[in-house]
Amino acid sequence: MTRVTAVQLAPVVGDLAGNADRALQALAAAVAAGAELVVLPELTTSGYVFESPEEAASLGLAPDDAVFARFAAAAGDAVVVVGFAETGDDGRLYNSAALLDASGVRAVYRKVHLWDREKLFFRPGDARPPVVETRLGRIAVMICFDMEFPEWPRIAALAGADLLAVPTNWPLVPVPEGERAPEVQIAIATARMNRMAIVCADRVGLERGVDWTGGTSIVSAEGALVAAVGPTAGTASADLDLLDSRDKRQAEHVDLLGDRRPDLYGPLVGGA
Amino acid sequence: MTRVTAVQLAPVVGDLAGNADRALQALAAAVAAGAELVVLPELTTSGYVFESPEEAASLGLAPDDAVFARFAAAAGDAVVVVGFAETGDDGRLYNSAALLDASGVRAVYRKVHLWDREKLFFRPGDARPPVVETRLGRIAVMICFDMEFPEWPRIAALAGADLLAVPTNWPLVPVPEGERAPEVQIAIATARMNRMAIVCADRVGLERGVDWTGGTSIVSAEGALVAAVGPTAGTASADLDLLDSRDKRQAEHVDLLGDRRPDLYGPLVGGA
Repeated sequence: MTRVTAVQLAPVVGDLAGNADRALQALAAAVAAGAELVVLPELTTSGYVFESPEEAASLGLAPDDAVFARFAAAAGDAVVVVGFAETGDDGRLYNSAALLDASGVRAVYRKVHLWDREKLFFRPGDARPPVVETRLGRIAVMICFDMEFPEWPRIAALAGADLLAVPTNWPLVPVPEGERAPEVQIAIATARMNRMAIVCADRVGLERGVDWTGGTSIVSAEGALVAAVGPTAGTASADLDLLDSRDKRQAEHVDLLGDRRPDLYGPLVGGA
Repeated sequence: MTRVTAVQLAPVVGDLAGNADRALQALAAAVAAGAELVVLPELTTSGYVFESPEEAASLGLAPDDAVFARFAAAAGDAVVVVGFAETGDDGRLYNSAALLDASGVRAVYRKVHLWDREKLFFRPGDARPPVVETRLGRIAVMICFDMEFPEWPRIAALAGADLLAVPTNWPLVPVPEGERAPEVQIAIATARMNRMAIVCADRVGLERGVDWTGGTSIVSAEGALVAAVGPTAGTASADLDLLDSRDKRQAEHVDLLGDRRPDLYGPLVGGA
């Protein structure tokens, strides 16, 4: 079993130093409590509600920034996924997430499906979600709105991901009494359709008038919501058997990936 | 607005005449109550739990069978989608659904993603879900497990479907108290990700030891469950504005289909 923790923080837009300190403190606490995988929100280091492209750009970090050495030092034996505004080697700004461990940054993913005004501040990524072999299993990374394009988690599942780590910032939307946020419902359905565990780390903390879902959720490969935080800062933890994700048989004659019909999906989904 | 009704029946395996009579009675009642689109379950005419390929084959109907003229006569001004065991012109048996109106059968879809033991009785289809221009809008048809392959509803949405009609037979699975059946959760997420209304017509009635979810559900293009039946025979009805499905903008700079990145989905989802 793998002890998985999702951290729900309240980043403050513009406060690079404070955001990093708070995230490192939460990471250290999670590791001390036994977490082997720790997922932190989208744009943990920068905050989200930018006033201008210039402000956003000023909050970008290169993947070799010293802050990542601090995350690596705090990781202990854990694998960590954390969202940040990335200044690329091309000088452009990306909405990115790093997967790192004690050895340092092992993969950086740049969000491909930018949501709404993110398009004003970020350049979209142009690579598929990484699927990283770790000592825990194969961990894929994508960010927030990416998950709502079903092709994208499917690609991760087809590439062998046991668990999908999804740093998110979900703006609060009205939901009928007793209903889950739509993004959480999508996470549950996506886990079930792909038989792949999903960990979403959301944020809280009113920022320039924008409130957030606080929808941090850990979903098992069977599609069960096994841990959540609620609308305040905090952590959700669960023990997951990541090998559950490798058996795609849902019944004697059912294989959730093997029963696909790529001969029929080709042109429409793939090419146009 | 379009008045949509999903009919939850209890077919009896082997009782072709009785199943047709009960379905026609339910269809006539729905039309009399104002339904403009009526969706009936998977394998309405044959039942589901076959003992042998021979038994299943004996329950096949050709799309020009006289029973469909009776459905057309009962349709009035409504569009009807109904599941049946189809004897193809190749002599093989398919798990199919017909879309018909007063003019007769307009499209037949053969289930592509067969579930579990269905593989022992049916040949899978090899064509995409039809998207039929009707006076109500563009209606797509697929069957039960098809919906759980996210490529398949996506193809229907990309082909312009306003509403996805899904005849189903959902075997009952254990669900934690207060949770919806996983298939219903998938319908909700699928509607939301594609901004496409979905109508699932499920069945009830213990059949050779198999019980059913009774999960008949009408889901709006926004992903709201707007009508359901519960675990007995009955109907669910709702008024849907099918034009809602044509505006894929979720926010000022968001287009749920336009924001796709087919340049990145190609090979993995499409070709392998």
